[in-house]
Amino acid sequence: MIKTITVAVDGQGLHDITDAIVQVVDEAGWYEGLCTLYIQHTSASLLIQENYDASARHDLEAWLNRLVPENDPLYTHTLEGADDMPAHIKAALTATSPAIPIVDNKLALGAWQGVFLWEHRRQGGQRKIIIHLAS
Amino acid sequence: MIKTITVAVDGQGLHDITDAIVQVVDEAGWYEGLCTLYIQHTSASLLIQENYDASARHDLEAWLNRLVPENDPLYTHTLEGADDMPAHIKAALTATSPAIPIVDNKLALGAWQGVFLWEHRRQGGQRKIIIHLAS
Amino acid sequence: MIKTITVAVDGQGLHDITDAIVQVVDEAGWYEGLCTLYIQHTSASLLIQENYDASARHDLEAWLNRLVPENDPLYTHTLEGADDMPAHIKAALTATSPAIPIVDNKLALGAWQGVFLWEHRRQGGQRKIIIHLAS
Repeated sequence: MIKTITVAVDGQGLHDITDAIVQVVDEAGWYEGLCTLYIQHTSASLLIQENYDASARHDLEAWLNRLVPENDPLYTHTLEGADDMPAHIKAALTATSPAIPIVDNKLALGAWQGVFLWEHRRQGGQRKIIIHLAS
Repeated sequence: MIKTITVAVDGQGLHDITDAIVQVVDEAGWYEGLCTLYIQHTSASLLIQENYDASARHDLEAWLNRLVPENDPLYTHTLEGADDMPAHIKAALTATSPAIPIVDNKLALGAWQGVFLWEHRRQGGQRKIIIHLAS
Repeated sequence: MIKTITVAVDGQGLHDITDAIVQVVDEAGWYEGLCTLYIQHTSASLLIQENYDASARHDLEAWLNRLVPENDPLYTHTLEGADDMPAHIKAALTATSPAIPIVDNKLALGAWQGVFLWEHRRQGGQRKIIIHLAS
């Protein structure tokens, strides 16, 4: 089973999409299975991470921005803006297609896990995520 | 098919869980398929890497500890200990849900590949991994 | 359904394998599903990234080479050559088993996404990739 969702994001950072994924899994009503997520973009990624404390998300974003800064003289791919090449590198270092099991009719996230769209471009935009459910 | 295993780890580093995963696949007895692993934690990850030489695992751990040190003044998420925020960052940079094919009744790891739980907290603990098998 | 392909690579960098993966999916002729890729090596990885502009691939490679240089005095695993330990670290930071949905009989890559074998050893060689298709 395949379902596509579009998430509108207004800028860089971790956007919580847990509820949207849980809703798709709940509607499918499967007892056991695997939910695989796929983001159709090369400057955003999908992260399963700490969902409780906003400071952890803030630090993740700040740390990655420092590791992969804009305007690095190494970059030659600069025509699409100062945030474009850092966005590709950040996407390459993080996940494009995480999978989460379905157990007892529920998405089996750990107690402190949420699902996030990690937007790496400044302006954000409409991001498409394909959700595949397998038994 | 879903199976959950719990791995007790005594501290940071790469813990070889290959045998436990192979056992689940062997017991299932499938000829072909896909084995997806999922770790229900945000400060540990799952790695498929070199299983032959312990020095490679040592260097992986040492390199990542240097890239993501404790007590970085950038961190604001510090209430849960000096090793907590680095653990979240390390988990974000590595895999939460790797998949390995099953071919000819066997987990199709390469000649030098093993499966590791990569613990990023100092104290370790009980870590839950969900294993999903698909045909 | 499982299929194994072997890709000959002549050195470090991003090698476009999109056509080979698309061909396997096209031949299978499935309407909907999931295509999971698995690389049986610990010094190469699989990347879904920007396929349009070669400068983006160049910068990805240059950036990762700077982050994980050869001859770092931290390394103790040095017997297999100066490029061996950096290759393991690069593989640990990038994907071993990405998955791409199949939608309407086609591999559902985004408009600018391609599939790449990311070779991290200088000499390259024959790299085996297992392709698993699930409905």
